Amino acid sequence: MRTILIIGIGAGDPGQLTLAAAEALGRTDVFFVLDKGAEKHDLIALRQELMRRFARDDHRVVEVRDPDRDRTAEGYVRAVDDWRRDRADLLEAAMAEHLADGGTGAFLVWGDPALYDSTLAVVEEIEARGKLDVDHVVVPGVSSVSTLAARHRIGLNRVGRPFLVTTGRRIADGLPPDVDDIVVMLDANCTFTRHVGEDLDIYWGAYLGTADEILVAGPLAEVAPEIVETRRAARERKGWIMDTYLLRRRDPVTAG
Amino acid sequence: MRTILIIGIGAGDPGQLTLAAAEALGRTDVFFVLDKGAEKHDLIALRQELMRRFARDDHRVVEVRDPDRDRTAEGYVRAVDDWRRDRADLLEAAMAEHLADGGTGAFLVWGDPALYDSTLAVVEEIEARGKLDVDHVVVPGVSSVSTLAARHRIGLNRVGRPFLVTTGRRIADGLPPDVDDIVVMLDANCTFTRHVGEDLDIYWGAYLGTADEILVAGPLAEVAPEIVETRRAARERKGWIMDTYLLRRRDPVTAG
Repeated sequence: MRTILIIGIGAGDPGQLTLAAAEALGRTDVFFVLDKGAEKHDLIALRQELMRRFARDDHRVVEVRDPDRDRTAEGYVRAVDDWRRDRADLLEAAMAEHLADGGTGAFLVWGDPALYDSTLAVVEEIEARGKLDVDHVVVPGVSSVSTLAARHRIGLNRVGRPFLVTTGRRIADGLPPDVDDIVVMLDANCTFTRHVGEDLDIYWGAYLGTADEILVAGPLAEVAPEIVETRRAARERKGWIMDTYLLRRRDPVTAG
Repeated sequence: MRTILIIGIGAGDPGQLTLAAAEALGRTDVFFVLDKGAEKHDLIALRQELMRRFARDDHRVVEVRDPDRDRTAEGYVRAVDDWRRDRADLLEAAMAEHLADGGTGAFLVWGDPALYDSTLAVVEEIEARGKLDVDHVVVPGVSSVSTLAARHRIGLNRVGRPFLVTTGRRIADGLPPDVDDIVVMLDANCTFTRHVGEDLDIYWGAYLGTADEILVAGPLAEVAPEIVETRRAARERKGWIMDTYLLRRRDPVTAG
């Protein structure tokens, strides 16, 4: 039996690591790292810092070349499924080669592993195949959503009301009519600009929890151009960007 | 100027404390604790353990009697507003009396302060009154929602899809038609039993992160009676319960 730890490490600030996550790093034999190329160099450096501080001296790191993902594919879910299968192939082979029976492997996942992350599904696929005897444990982390709210010092919900977490693609054709507080993730296209005609506030954050953190908040129509330009400039400067935001209706449609 | 730290301490497991939260405990002069009566004795004990481990030796604890909340009030939000004002009165007086100018006070909040917690709003109200010169910082924590997902080893969203976080009261008259994954909090009435006729899975958890943690998952129609009975017995045994759950449509209505 091999044990795989899926460890949420917080949004980018080493201080967001939990004690349980630090302890989990300390009992890991082999860290599996998906190499996503050079563009997220800062994140790789942060991950290395965490390993240096909390992993055992004899830990090993196995880098796996992340399979190319067909981002032009028509069927988004199908493309994700194919990519996940390729990823499972690569990781299964890496586990068989580098992680001994009885050993503990780990994945360090930004934020919380339960939010828009594929690690859990890939590990489940490897288990389901049954070629390797693998079990896994999830260590929850501080999500980028909680970090966004903390930095803006706001609640995600208003009193007794719901909030939705969704993707940029999902709000391209309109906001859901029955919820007033909408967290948007994975939006490479500044989809909020489509909704400047609505009576919304936006709370936007990029590189949350890191030294490069940027926050902008205000009435959407007023601050949308600033966010678009800030985002563009930051992305150009650093070579990558990770951002998320909350859209909040100023005049709620849900009853209080 | 007084500084107030609003510190998320995770769902109930001391291991969920982040390094930043531990550090924040260590620079707190005065912890403000709202005494909610005897029923949550275990949680008070856990909070005391965290203070013992991470607070300075000379820290002080100021207990404030939580104002009674009119839970029978017709207007739920109005009742919450009144209660928040009463709470702000009590805490403002406690801060003026016990926290020196230049000092640092703190509230320890279960889970993450951004989710269905009133601490932030109460502190904002005290600041808005302007009688005390107060500023506040939020330290995000691991939420009970992330903990629920981790213990069940599931994602909160499915690939590219949204999820909603809402309350028991909000789903009493029906589930939202446009989202397939619904996290329900603050449900004292097992409102999920109203939806056993729908094709749903449920992932339920109580006392998440503690030694008393209980997990039940399965098709809603099959496991609903077990959850109702488990919940009733646990509540009777311990005198209180804190639980949350995810309802997941087996046949999604949202496009993939």
